[in-house]
Amino acid sequence: MHPASEALNSNQHPGAGLPYYRPVAQECAVFEHAFAKKLPLLLKGPTGSGKSRFVEHMAAKMGLPLITVSCHDETSAVDLLGRYLVQGSETVWMDGPMTRAVRTGSIFYIDEIAEARPDTIVALHSLTDHRRTLFVDRHDEVLSAGPNFMLIASFNPGYQKGWKELKASTRQRFVSIAFNYPSPQVETEIVVAESGVDEAQAKKLILVGNKVRNLVELGLAETVSTRLIVNAACLIRDGLPPRLSCDVALVQPLTDDLETAAALRDLVALIF
Amino acid sequence: MHPASEALNSNQHPGAGLPYYRPVAQECAVFEHAFAKKLPLLLKGPTGSGKSRFVEHMAAKMGLPLITVSCHDETSAVDLLGRYLVQGSETVWMDGPMTRAVRTGSIFYIDEIAEARPDTIVALHSLTDHRRTLFVDRHDEVLSAGPNFMLIASFNPGYQKGWKELKASTRQRFVSIAFNYPSPQVETEIVVAESGVDEAQAKKLILVGNKVRNLVELGLAETVSTRLIVNAACLIRDGLPPRLSCDVALVQPLTDDLETAAALRDLVALIF
Amino acid sequence: MHPASEALNSNQHPGAGLPYYRPVAQECAVFEHAFAKKLPLLLKGPTGSGKSRFVEHMAAKMGLPLITVSCHDETSAVDLLGRYLVQGSETVWMDGPMTRAVRTGSIFYIDEIAEARPDTIVALHSLTDHRRTLFVDRHDEVLSAGPNFMLIASFNPGYQKGWKELKASTRQRFVSIAFNYPSPQVETEIVVAESGVDEAQAKKLILVGNKVRNLVELGLAETVSTRLIVNAACLIRDGLPPRLSCDVALVQPLTDDLETAAALRDLVALIF
Amino acid sequence: MHPASEALNSNQHPGAGLPYYRPVAQECAVFEHAFAKKLPLLLKGPTGSGKSRFVEHMAAKMGLPLITVSCHDETSAVDLLGRYLVQGSETVWMDGPMTRAVRTGSIFYIDEIAEARPDTIVALHSLTDHRRTLFVDRHDEVLSAGPNFMLIASFNPGYQKGWKELKASTRQRFVSIAFNYPSPQVETEIVVAESGVDEAQAKKLILVGNKVRNLVELGLAETVSTRLIVNAACLIRDGLPPRLSCDVALVQPLTDDLETAAALRDLVALIF
Amino acid sequence: MHPASEALNSNQHPGAGLPYYRPVAQECAVFEHAFAKKLPLLLKGPTGSGKSRFVEHMAAKMGLPLITVSCHDETSAVDLLGRYLVQGSETVWMDGPMTRAVRTGSIFYIDEIAEARPDTIVALHSLTDHRRTLFVDRHDEVLSAGPNFMLIASFNPGYQKGWKELKASTRQRFVSIAFNYPSPQVETEIVVAESGVDEAQAKKLILVGNKVRNLVELGLAETVSTRLIVNAACLIRDGLPPRLSCDVALVQPLTDDLETAAALRDLVALIF
Amino acid sequence: MHPASEALNSNQHPGAGLPYYRPVAQECAVFEHAFAKKLPLLLKGPTGSGKSRFVEHMAAKMGLPLITVSCHDETSAVDLLGRYLVQGSETVWMDGPMTRAVRTGSIFYIDEIAEARPDTIVALHSLTDHRRTLFVDRHDEVLSAGPNFMLIASFNPGYQKGWKELKASTRQRFVSIAFNYPSPQVETEIVVAESGVDEAQAKKLILVGNKVRNLVELGLAETVSTRLIVNAACLIRDGLPPRLSCDVALVQPLTDDLETAAALRDLVALIF
Repeated sequence: MHPASEALNSNQHPGAGLPYYRPVAQECAVFEHAFAKKLPLLLKGPTGSGKSRFVEHMAAKMGLPLITVSCHDETSAVDLLGRYLVQGSETVWMDGPMTRAVRTGSIFYIDEIAEARPDTIVALHSLTDHRRTLFVDRHDEVLSAGPNFMLIASFNPGYQKGWKELKASTRQRFVSIAFNYPSPQVETEIVVAESGVDEAQAKKLILVGNKVRNLVELGLAETVSTRLIVNAACLIRDGLPPRLSCDVALVQPLTDDLETAAALRDLVALIF
Repeated sequence: MHPASEALNSNQHPGAGLPYYRPVAQECAVFEHAFAKKLPLLLKGPTGSGKSRFVEHMAAKMGLPLITVSCHDETSAVDLLGRYLVQGSETVWMDGPMTRAVRTGSIFYIDEIAEARPDTIVALHSLTDHRRTLFVDRHDEVLSAGPNFMLIASFNPGYQKGWKELKASTRQRFVSIAFNYPSPQVETEIVVAESGVDEAQAKKLILVGNKVRNLVELGLAETVSTRLIVNAACLIRDGLPPRLSCDVALVQPLTDDLETAAALRDLVALIF
Repeated sequence: MHPASEALNSNQHPGAGLPYYRPVAQECAVFEHAFAKKLPLLLKGPTGSGKSRFVEHMAAKMGLPLITVSCHDETSAVDLLGRYLVQGSETVWMDGPMTRAVRTGSIFYIDEIAEARPDTIVALHSLTDHRRTLFVDRHDEVLSAGPNFMLIASFNPGYQKGWKELKASTRQRFVSIAFNYPSPQVETEIVVAESGVDEAQAKKLILVGNKVRNLVELGLAETVSTRLIVNAACLIRDGLPPRLSCDVALVQPLTDDLETAAALRDLVALIF
Repeated sequence: MHPASEALNSNQHPGAGLPYYRPVAQECAVFEHAFAKKLPLLLKGPTGSGKSRFVEHMAAKMGLPLITVSCHDETSAVDLLGRYLVQGSETVWMDGPMTRAVRTGSIFYIDEIAEARPDTIVALHSLTDHRRTLFVDRHDEVLSAGPNFMLIASFNPGYQKGWKELKASTRQRFVSIAFNYPSPQVETEIVVAESGVDEAQAKKLILVGNKVRNLVELGLAETVSTRLIVNAACLIRDGLPPRLSCDVALVQPLTDDLETAAALRDLVALIF
Repeated sequence: MHPASEALNSNQHPGAGLPYYRPVAQECAVFEHAFAKKLPLLLKGPTGSGKSRFVEHMAAKMGLPLITVSCHDETSAVDLLGRYLVQGSETVWMDGPMTRAVRTGSIFYIDEIAEARPDTIVALHSLTDHRRTLFVDRHDEVLSAGPNFMLIASFNPGYQKGWKELKASTRQRFVSIAFNYPSPQVETEIVVAESGVDEAQAKKLILVGNKVRNLVELGLAETVSTRLIVNAACLIRDGLPPRLSCDVALVQPLTDDLETAAALRDLVALIF
Repeated sequence: MHPASEALNSNQHPGAGLPYYRPVAQECAVFEHAFAKKLPLLLKGPTGSGKSRFVEHMAAKMGLPLITVSCHDETSAVDLLGRYLVQGSETVWMDGPMTRAVRTGSIFYIDEIAEARPDTIVALHSLTDHRRTLFVDRHDEVLSAGPNFMLIASFNPGYQKGWKELKASTRQRFVSIAFNYPSPQVETEIVVAESGVDEAQAKKLILVGNKVRNLVELGLAETVSTRLIVNAACLIRDGLPPRLSCDVALVQPLTDDLETAAALRDLVALIF
């Protein structure tokens, strides 16, 4: 029926184990208890701190299909609920991803929920309280969520300062977990696993990363994520010189300012 | 005809008694007299103070179907009144929820009315005065509301400071009840009933809640609702450690600020 | 043909006399002379000062059908003039209320005209001067208004301060009447007639109303309308205690501020 | 074919002479020379200063059909040029008023041109220079204006202060005439002719009008137009007392401010 | 196929010579070299400085068809590229003017390019560099411009101060020519040729024009274009008195301010 | 199937070598390693610094088809992913360029990505991480990118100051290369190759260019790109006098200010 959504999860991780995820604190226990008590979950944290990986990992671990939507300024309730399409002389209803998730008993992950248009957020209110019900008004349908349906949302508090806040009436519907960058030891483990560089190289890169993370005086909009360090490690592993790898994978993605870039390159040159 | 709306009420509370609601003051009497005199009702109060539960409870108690709409920035009159849909080579009229409520003699509950687009609010004016009439212009229809139809709206005064006020010409059409958080005794009763924790645990959680509610110097956008306390109680009851339960169910939903979160966790640690 | 519009007037006042309206000054004479000279009429005044009732009363008194439109931010000329609807494989023209009013020789009442989109206001210009003609461009039709057609608009000067003014080129097309709250004596008569309370109760309520109206230092957006007093009287007549009736029907509709509400309740307690 | 547009002119002035217009200066000569040299005309002036009447008068005097469009914030080129309409299974082109005017060799009058959307104004550029050509792109048609086609626009400089100016590239395409209120003698003649009051009454009303026009310290958005004086005269002629007539026809249309209205009523009372 | 576009050029200048244009500097040479090197051309200059005439003249001189589009705030890429139209039960593609120009090897002139919506400008980028290719995505077509296709745009720097600039990434794609008002001698030649007045009258009018052009202290949005002088000359030639001609053709189009207009009329009175 | 996209690349470079591109630093190596590690690439730099040429060059060098999209304010996800078109009585899906690129294993180049609407950027997130998957929700399709698919974006940091930034969550997904103007020696080589002028002329033009680039006190929005120098060289090569060529190809495209233009012309006159 909807091969797309199931395919997503099974295609990515054929046969073998779970998608790689290195737990940082007690996030797995919170996930499982929230699932048991049918409470929705909100993941808060900066870019590249592993929120999406965590969801993929837990969905696979629990053997449940996962359906993901990335929100933006124009994501509306219709995009999540579904719409009528004209096909020849007929009008056909097409479930949106949230409707599909309720219907099939899936984990439904809404990435960057605070970006979406307000009707989107209101549309999921009835799924987040004791009703656990989805009103698909345009299709004149009311769906009760089964025991396997779980709603997870993410948002990045760093973006929402002052203007694009989640309203309290939405936030208070979710159990919330704060994500942050991992400890050096955990991060080393991740970088080695994902890029194939040796531990010494990984540690050098993480040293660069942490030095930049501490340079608050640079006024960077956001700082070095684990993702950036993995990218640099991949290029080094593929044979690109370390300094050049750091420049294109770490420095240039962080800033367009010539002097800031020069300062960051100097910092790299101290270590490599 | 419209199984959805009736299903909503009957499905949720099969067989047995009313949906759980613990009255706080004389709201039930006001509801009944307003119903008797055919006056519309406006429920004012913060997130999670029980407005929606109260409406569900009264509808079930009076044995009337309940139809609910949650408003957002783009809710328009068309969403409430109905629209034409193209189906194959025919155009079919589909009642919106307000039209359905008038036609079937139901309680019609408009959640967060101040969020809706202005045409929505104007569309219900003729239902709120001596006319008790709905003009469905696009369907060339005029509906008189029967004796069982009642219009209820809610809004959160905390959100509307300065910019999204209900106009006086709308407000003065409603009898209004102000909701607030219940007394500790009533709240204990609610938390025990909803989560299954014992009274001692419930009291500790409510102590946390009330301490936070008094910390006005934290500048929280909104404070601990009964809902948050129930969520924390559910996780504790399911075996998650109390401090961790309070962190993910009480603290993280209230703030993204690291220092505020730490202060709230300290407060939790004094009690658990 | 258009049973809706005629039904509106006749349904509301079956058999017996005119809809209840208590004249305050010479508004009835002005209405009749404006009708005789085919001049359009603009009613100016605050919420609940009786503008709409006055129009219903005069229409019934003169035995003319009345068609009413309440304007909002998105009311457009199309809404008043009419539109094409697709029905099956045909496109059918459907008169809007203004076109219907001209065609049938009715009183056409545009409530809160300043709220409408500018094309709405321009669309009626040709009906308000010596031409008395309606251009229904999309239907390629030009309608001359017969002698019974009369255009009446209302607006609330209190809302339009500074930003949503009627342009002078529109205002100068209308003969205008200013409405305000009635004298205590007239108001008593109205409250008794509408709610069924005795004169003593009515006088007490009006005393409350006038005390609040004089409390300009409260900074209320709008003050106690006759409608509010009638609502409180209805609840008292139905058996709700007077202080509670005043709280939910008078105080809560006027303010969300806790201190202002307390001050108003104190004022009520002095009288009841 | 298009009976609407021709009907407009002939219906309004059946049989007898020209529509009433009292020339104030040399506007008739300028009109005729602009017509002869095929130059478009722009009429500038305040509300009710006779611009529209002048155009009606000249069109009738020259025996040419007149097509009028009143612009507003949402008037677009499509409204003037024409559009496709779906009728059953066919799409039919329908000329807009400007296209019809070019096709039929009519006077085309665009009232309040500065209000229209910018595409409207650009669409008529090619008609205002040596090309005298209309590009109806959507209908894949190019129309040359015949010798009888003339383009006339009006705008009210008082409205356009600072924000809704006509661009110089548009203005410099037109020969322009400034309109203003007539001299007392001419205005008396107009008021008598239009309302049927005697000269003495007319002079009193014009005295009121001119006193108000000189009260610049009142800060009125716009002042007494001849139209307002004619309205008051009509009501007086119909038997409404003069002071009440002045109140509803002169004072209330000019201001909503209670003190300003009182001052204006005092002024009326000095004369009547 | 597209008789409209070709007709445009040939209709306007049947038989005889080129459309009248009096070169001011080396603009003709620049045009020809830009054409030879397939570089697009941008004409910069104020209202009525002859940009459009120059393009018509050069197109006719080189014997190439000319297709013109005047941009406004809502001109979009679709308007230039083309769209699908529903005709009966079929959907038919209709080339826009830019697509037609590329297909037929014409000069394509975009008047006031900075007014258009940004997608318009991006849509022509690929035509302005070494690719000389037009991507008509919606019609799934890629068109290579032949040797006769040339892209010309105009813009008025006086309008764009601060808010509606052409982006550098667009401007640097064009060879640019700055237009300004001609020298008195050249302007006399133009006024005589276009209006038929004698040289003495033309010189007087140009004297007026140049005096106004030097009155920078008047703060006029834009000053006297050659077009205005020609208009005044035409009215004089047709018999309208010179001072009145100057008032309606020169003064009133430049200003709505009563004092500025009086000052300009005084200036006219010194010369005529 | 989609001849357009393949045609684009093969048409432009038939038979012979690569499209002309002169490497400036190690950008080719970074491109190849990013391709090998399946990392997306972001090219940052000013107008005319060779970003687009670089992409064309690398695509041809690697023998891969190239599909390009230029973004603007209204580019949306639908434009990249595809849409349904009504054709007669059927609705046909039409791949957008990004879907086509994934399906055919092409290089996909998004020019000026920061201009696009936010849904565009979110739509490509899943292609830029370990998933390398495109969700074409409206066509109910999930596409995995093959090994040849590569995503490249460009943006101009000079435009985005303060208001149209790429969000960190997007930027950190890309390996980034900063482009700038080439050294005089490299630029000479380019100008000679592209225009056919001799080295001496090229050097003079580059001297002009570099003098302007150093005149930061002029406050130019953007400075002389290599493209401008090549344009001037082409006109000189075609016989237009050098000073005039510099005026129309270098000076006028940079500024509309008369004094700045005069200063730049003086600078040109010192060298030519």
